Amino acid sequence: MRYGSRLWKLRVLQAELKINIRLTPTGKAIPIRLFLTNESGYYLDISLYKEIMFQAYGDKQGPLHGMLINTPYVTKDLLQSKRFQAQTLGTSYVYDIPEMFRQSLIKLWNSMNDHAFLPPTPLPSDILTYTELVLDDQGQLVQMNRLPGGNEASATSLPAASPSTPHSTLAGFTQELQQADAGDGRVTPGARAGGDFTVKIGMVAWKMTLKTPEYPEGRDIIVIGNDITYKIGSFGPQEDMLFLRASELARAQGIPRIYVAANSGARIGLAEEIRHMFHVAWEDPDNPYKGYKYLYLTPQDYKKVSALNSVHCEHVEENGESRYKITDIIGKEDGLGVENLRASGMIAGESSLAYDSVITISLVTCRAIGIGAYIVRLGQRTIQVENSHIILTGCGALNKVLGREVYTSNNQLGGIQIMHNNGVTHDTVCDDFEGVYTILQWLSYMPKNIHSPVPMLKAKDPIDRTIDFVPTKAPYDPRWMLAGRPNPNQKGQWLSGFFDHGSFMEIMQPWAQTVVVGRARLGGIPVGVVAVETRTVELSIPADPANLDSEAKIIQQAGQVWFPDSAFKTAEAIKDFNREGLPLMVFANWRGFSGGMKDMYDQVLKFGAYIVDGLREYRQPVLIYIPPQGELRGGSWVVIDPTINPRHMEIGGILEPEGTVEIRFRRKDLVKTMRRVDPVYIQLAERLGTPELSPADRKELEAKLKEREEFLAPMYQQVAVQFADLHDTPGRMQEKGAITDVLDWKTSRTFFYWRLRRLLLEEAVKGKIHEANPELTDGQIQAMLRRWFVEVEGTVKAYLWDSNKDLVEWLEKQLTEEEGVRSVVEENIKYISRDYVLKQIRSLVQANPEVAMDSIVHMTQHISPTQRAEVVRILSTMDSPSST
Amino acid sequence: MRYGSRLWKLRVLQAELKINIRLTPTGKAIPIRLFLTNESGYYLDISLYKEIMFQAYGDKQGPLHGMLINTPYVTKDLLQSKRFQAQTLGTSYVYDIPEMFRQSLIKLWNSMNDHAFLPPTPLPSDILTYTELVLDDQGQLVQMNRLPGGNEASATSLPAASPSTPHSTLAGFTQELQQADAGDGRVTPGARAGGDFTVKIGMVAWKMTLKTPEYPEGRDIIVIGNDITYKIGSFGPQEDMLFLRASELARAQGIPRIYVAANSGARIGLAEEIRHMFHVAWEDPDNPYKGYKYLYLTPQDYKKVSALNSVHCEHVEENGESRYKITDIIGKEDGLGVENLRASGMIAGESSLAYDSVITISLVTCRAIGIGAYIVRLGQRTIQVENSHIILTGCGALNKVLGREVYTSNNQLGGIQIMHNNGVTHDTVCDDFEGVYTILQWLSYMPKNIHSPVPMLKAKDPIDRTIDFVPTKAPYDPRWMLAGRPNPNQKGQWLSGFFDHGSFMEIMQPWAQTVVVGRARLGGIPVGVVAVETRTVELSIPADPANLDSEAKIIQQAGQVWFPDSAFKTAEAIKDFNREGLPLMVFANWRGFSGGMKDMYDQVLKFGAYIVDGLREYRQPVLIYIPPQGELRGGSWVVIDPTINPRHMEIGGILEPEGTVEIRFRRKDLVKTMRRVDPVYIQLAERLGTPELSPADRKELEAKLKEREEFLAPMYQQVAVQFADLHDTPGRMQEKGAITDVLDWKTSRTFFYWRLRRLLLEEAVKGKIHEANPELTDGQIQAMLRRWFVEVEGTVKAYLWDSNKDLVEWLEKQLTEEEGVRSVVEENIKYISRDYVLKQIRSLVQANPEVAMDSIVHMTQHISPTQRAEVVRILSTMDSPSST
Repeated sequence: MRYGSRLWKLRVLQAELKINIRLTPTGKAIPIRLFLTNESGYYLDISLYKEIMFQAYGDKQGPLHGMLINTPYVTKDLLQSKRFQAQTLGTSYVYDIPEMFRQSLIKLWNSMNDHAFLPPTPLPSDILTYTELVLDDQGQLVQMNRLPGGNEASATSLPAASPSTPHSTLAGFTQELQQADAGDGRVTPGARAGGDFTVKIGMVAWKMTLKTPEYPEGRDIIVIGNDITYKIGSFGPQEDMLFLRASELARAQGIPRIYVAANSGARIGLAEEIRHMFHVAWEDPDNPYKGYKYLYLTPQDYKKVSALNSVHCEHVEENGESRYKITDIIGKEDGLGVENLRASGMIAGESSLAYDSVITISLVTCRAIGIGAYIVRLGQRTIQVENSHIILTGCGALNKVLGREVYTSNNQLGGIQIMHNNGVTHDTVCDDFEGVYTILQWLSYMPKNIHSPVPMLKAKDPIDRTIDFVPTKAPYDPRWMLAGRPNPNQKGQWLSGFFDHGSFMEIMQPWAQTVVVGRARLGGIPVGVVAVETRTVELSIPADPANLDSEAKIIQQAGQVWFPDSAFKTAEAIKDFNREGLPLMVFANWRGFSGGMKDMYDQVLKFGAYIVDGLREYRQPVLIYIPPQGELRGGSWVVIDPTINPRHMEIGGILEPEGTVEIRFRRKDLVKTMRRVDPVYIQLAERLGTPELSPADRKELEAKLKEREEFLAPMYQQVAVQFADLHDTPGRMQEKGAITDVLDWKTSRTFFYWRLRRLLLEEAVKGKIHEANPELTDGQIQAMLRRWFVEVEGTVKAYLWDSNKDLVEWLEKQLTEEEGVRSVVEENIKYISRDYVLKQIRSLVQANPEVAMDSIVHMTQHISPTQRAEVVRILSTMDSPSST
Repeated sequence: MRYGSRLWKLRVLQAELKINIRLTPTGKAIPIRLFLTNESGYYLDISLYKEIMFQAYGDKQGPLHGMLINTPYVTKDLLQSKRFQAQTLGTSYVYDIPEMFRQSLIKLWNSMNDHAFLPPTPLPSDILTYTELVLDDQGQLVQMNRLPGGNEASATSLPAASPSTPHSTLAGFTQELQQADAGDGRVTPGARAGGDFTVKIGMVAWKMTLKTPEYPEGRDIIVIGNDITYKIGSFGPQEDMLFLRASELARAQGIPRIYVAANSGARIGLAEEIRHMFHVAWEDPDNPYKGYKYLYLTPQDYKKVSALNSVHCEHVEENGESRYKITDIIGKEDGLGVENLRASGMIAGESSLAYDSVITISLVTCRAIGIGAYIVRLGQRTIQVENSHIILTGCGALNKVLGREVYTSNNQLGGIQIMHNNGVTHDTVCDDFEGVYTILQWLSYMPKNIHSPVPMLKAKDPIDRTIDFVPTKAPYDPRWMLAGRPNPNQKGQWLSGFFDHGSFMEIMQPWAQTVVVGRARLGGIPVGVVAVETRTVELSIPADPANLDSEAKIIQQAGQVWFPDSAFKTAEAIKDFNREGLPLMVFANWRGFSGGMKDMYDQVLKFGAYIVDGLREYRQPVLIYIPPQGELRGGSWVVIDPTINPRHMEIGGILEPEGTVEIRFRRKDLVKTMRRVDPVYIQLAERLGTPELSPADRKELEAKLKEREEFLAPMYQQVAVQFADLHDTPGRMQEKGAITDVLDWKTSRTFFYWRLRRLLLEEAVKGKIHEANPELTDGQIQAMLRRWFVEVEGTVKAYLWDSNKDLVEWLEKQLTEEEGVRSVVEENIKYISRDYVLKQIRSLVQANPEVAMDSIVHMTQHISPTQRAEVVRILSTMDSPSST
């Protein structure tokens, strides 16, 4: 522990210590050798040996056990050299990823034990199983277990494009895949034996099965990683094809796609065979500064390469020489130029679709460049290792364009200080291991596939505990409200927050800080969270190094206000959570959108509109809750009102509102009120009203009245605000149906827990009904459900419909099928399904009477002899009129 | 013409001139009165009368015809007073909108005659018909023809919310509507007679049928407008309900929704009955500065209002008085506070959905505030009248928050100088009439409903003409390439561009000027266009008036580069065009994305990723074409490569590429080339190689070699660029299948016209096949189509498959059904459909055998007596085994 990091920096991967152990103070010294090994950089292996041959000391038999004491030390093997290459670049070797997942899993189990009741079994021994996904000679995936470092693909996996079939290659593959995508399972790795795998490929993919705390029985994921030791992790057609197939497999199975990015963008190459061969036709061979005319090959050279279709030439005669002027260089190898861009486009499109279809998470280690940066962004959920960068163009190329040394490193362009601050990166970690651990933590909130409900853990934090932290009138950190905080007045005491202890994980923290977003659990139910910063935050905008006039700026952003950036952040978080199948909780506390000129210019309207779009498309329950001391005014109410998506949204209430919608009292209204309420004012006004006043008296009285008015104005302004406020009380909001409940903050955990459970169960049942008859509307389904409830429980107990807890019990009972006994809900769904099938068949035959005969013949197999007889009877009665 | 605008400013709407006309120089003077009337502000009516009674002079009989000469002048009527109110605010009265559409239509027909062959009929007399859409007492729409200014709704159209049914109101309506939305037509205005329309409503909607040049038989649109003369055009629950219903109607019918915005945001009100009644309980009545305790009502007042449920109170005894302390003010009227916000949320959600479902266009005149601004933005396509503004908060309220007079007008916040420059506003117009005219021009590119193909006009501009303007190596205005330009060398001559003359309409012009987007026609086919600015542009960012430190900035943006703003603009245009059903043409000419630190910080990755998303979702043909002198490098290629959406995209070629993907020659490679190619260098190097050199000679030679190297380097750099370039020639791109065609620019109109027509026709046929069997993939359908073609035309003519023009003719023949004769395609589709229906029925029965009996019984009605006999026969053979 003391010397580990120094040894690691010195690239010392193995240390050997010789120790003498005396079991008693005077006992015999037993010579022991301690071997410390840390080959991958995140897992320390310790073995102890006695100095005989090597005999394990203790239970564990290390690799030297049984070997002679003079066995020579092993020198660096191929794998170590690969590891060294990767680690020098600041990342892990791609084949170390599975072990990193295994170690992270163990860490996750241990940490989860802190806040969930996990099954009391020991860690499963097969906590992680995986197989590598390999491209076969048809460009399809096969599952294979092969040694680390064996990343090759079948040489024929990517049919070369030929001019006669310009579209045959990638487009064709994509089309095939779209079929598979439809669910016919064709991408699922089959038993097809691979060809000979002779082409190295700079990308590795696995299908992994993880036994996680939320899914102890196992969950599947697809993991894809660049091999940065092969052609610096660049993307050529082979790499893109493997990426495509692996991503498609994730979509076909509806499981998460994890991408560990360590790449250098699309591959760029030159035809080496031509490079050492071409000649230059100068305008004046003695003076190159007069320019060149063309590049050419000699007839001998041309003959050599033309058979490879490596070059297109035009024959010319010049200076009495026969020359082959080069018009196009094709290159004998595939993957030199535009074909890499083309294949990159393919995985860009695939990633856009993957984000929409499944859970996509990327971990950027070392670097992600160009297409590598785009597929990271297209997958949205991004974790960035601290010293890595996400860039489009390297600093060298930029300096060349700018004509001076503006940038000193790529990190300056796309390090975490840029990407975490603009929200491209959702979270940062100190190393790859923490990155993988964060991936697992994120996954623990998300369903194992797109057809599953969210995973629920048995939370240790009781749902019926009160919430210690109470939001204050004074600005506070909203994270305290969500997650709790140490008690500032009593050391060692914890003031609990709304969510389960330790379950809140923020994302996109430094970006657009007036809003706080993340994931959390309530009684073990995972939810997406949006909360509002109440304090004023500082936004520092860096100076543009490429523009000498620009300066760094610090801008103040008020709390409780949506700015263009925080509106964008809100919308992005909503989009992500929706695709993760999470319910959403919004702790709404906004005074409105910032409508100043700068923010209007900065497109606050566009990003605000994204919030509406995001909520409208939300497919899980959305609970809006105005927290104590919270307010929700005008513009901000409008973009999160439940009528935007009445099927899924509802708004919960507030205890003590502060806000006013607007001050609706003008000065003349204030004066009117004074005239009605203030005795002094009334008296003066009355005296002014008497007709026999002298002009001087009148003037004096008017002045006094004016004086009184000025004196009273500030206080009456407060009265007016209060009067307006009384129009926006929770009482009125409930009266108008704008909010459904007014809750007590301290005990709201219980309410929301049962509410969420009920809504999730309702969604599940509604989904089944909808499947049985997709033509039913949500309103009809909701009414049905209620009717069935009353039918089962009787009208006396009908009031229980409004009790979330009772409904949860009822729905659970309905959904768990007892042996042989169908529940009322199941029974009803069966009837609905049957009716709908009948209706479908009828309308199909109505529209296509010519299929009736064939259908009848087919159906006769499905009816009983009695029914057959009945059909014959019906048919004969029908026949009679026409036959008579 | 000369005095018109001055009279208009003076609000003189009618002018009367007395003229004496002599038909011959010496003839009798006939006294004539000329009446000039311009009541609405955009249509000048001219009538001539003889001075007798009033007798029309000429054919036209004006309104005074037949009246006595001493008829008193009409004073301002109600409608004129409304008009005056609206026009004072700088907008038109809402009931003048239909006439504005009529006049604009006439203008459109006349202007279209210039570039399309319109049917040679005179303007249809019923060029515009419309009926008003009115809320009945069920909150549903009825069609009604009523007088201008009659905007009322049924008093009971919006059932008030009551505490017992908190969710019954708007959410309920929305649910009902979602049914209607499913296509059962329930929103279609029925014959239901409205109740008594007694409640004024500040919004008017119509269904209009326009006979336009692109649809001479008529196209339907829904038009919604605020009545700014009623409660300053604010949104209350009634207005929102009408907006909702009208928008839903547009969605149910799939027709465009036009919104003319002139509003003041959500309505804000106070309970007037309480305002004149409440008292203040001061801490110290003699010194209001000690503050107040609460507001209260006297028992008498409380009794008066409590019956109205206008207020919630708490009874207290204080100072020996009985008081009713106010806890909530409800108000006897609906529409005072939160209910307006709630209803606003509803139309925000509706507008988000409407943009996704149908064509939405908004015209902002006067102002759009708060929710008004949001529904404009949510509908995306926005036209803004010059002196109008789109804001969230008024400048007065902002100044109050800021504590000083920062803003002087609302125009400063959301005028065109803000909104057109940030792309919220797509186009600006000088007045409402031009605004409506622009709406009609935009509509002329778009299909009449979501099920129709794009409208094609018979273009006057021949498709086989050559294109005069040729893109140059030097930066040029890309609009010249699209639309042509006057010949700078020959006055009066026009250098034609790519698209039909006069058909290119740019949108979002001043925003993100490094990209140019708009709509145009090619041989009458409307397309969306994305082109690239090649010149450097200046972006001026205004100073923030609220921040004293900030300064206006001018930033240079290089041509052919995607910046965060222009990537965003590209993506937004693609999204819009996709929803309009337009094919897309991209004139790709990018050197890449701007990857400098500032632009990375400004989220260029996010907006670039939007381009990929937009293209992936595109449902119509996308043709990418690299224009002459164009280049398409690395990052920019990746986001528009056809593999992103192979079903719809294809890329066309370039004639003379300039670009290199990257310079792939390092210094040491340069030196290697010199050593191989340059005779001087070779000689020096050889001499250096001789072993018997003296150290001095060696030093000298080495210096000479270095010198030669330095001397050659710049030229060899050029050679290296050329060598790299030769890897990115059109020849290689075609060889690698990255581009499908290399075209000649001058004649490319013809190619693209037939290509587009073919692709559109293929889409239509494929759509039909897909409808017949939705399980078929695009690849299968494409193969089918080709097989049918060969079957019909014979293998000899199979090569014609590659001729777009021949395919167009063939497909057209297949699609036009001759009387009684079905085409091969139609015939095949029928078989496919039949097979699919049978397959469906079979799998339904397989999965639900219990429906077989009922289905058979039902189907027996659809078979012939002979078939019935056959069924009986089959059944009896089946029965025998079980009966024996």
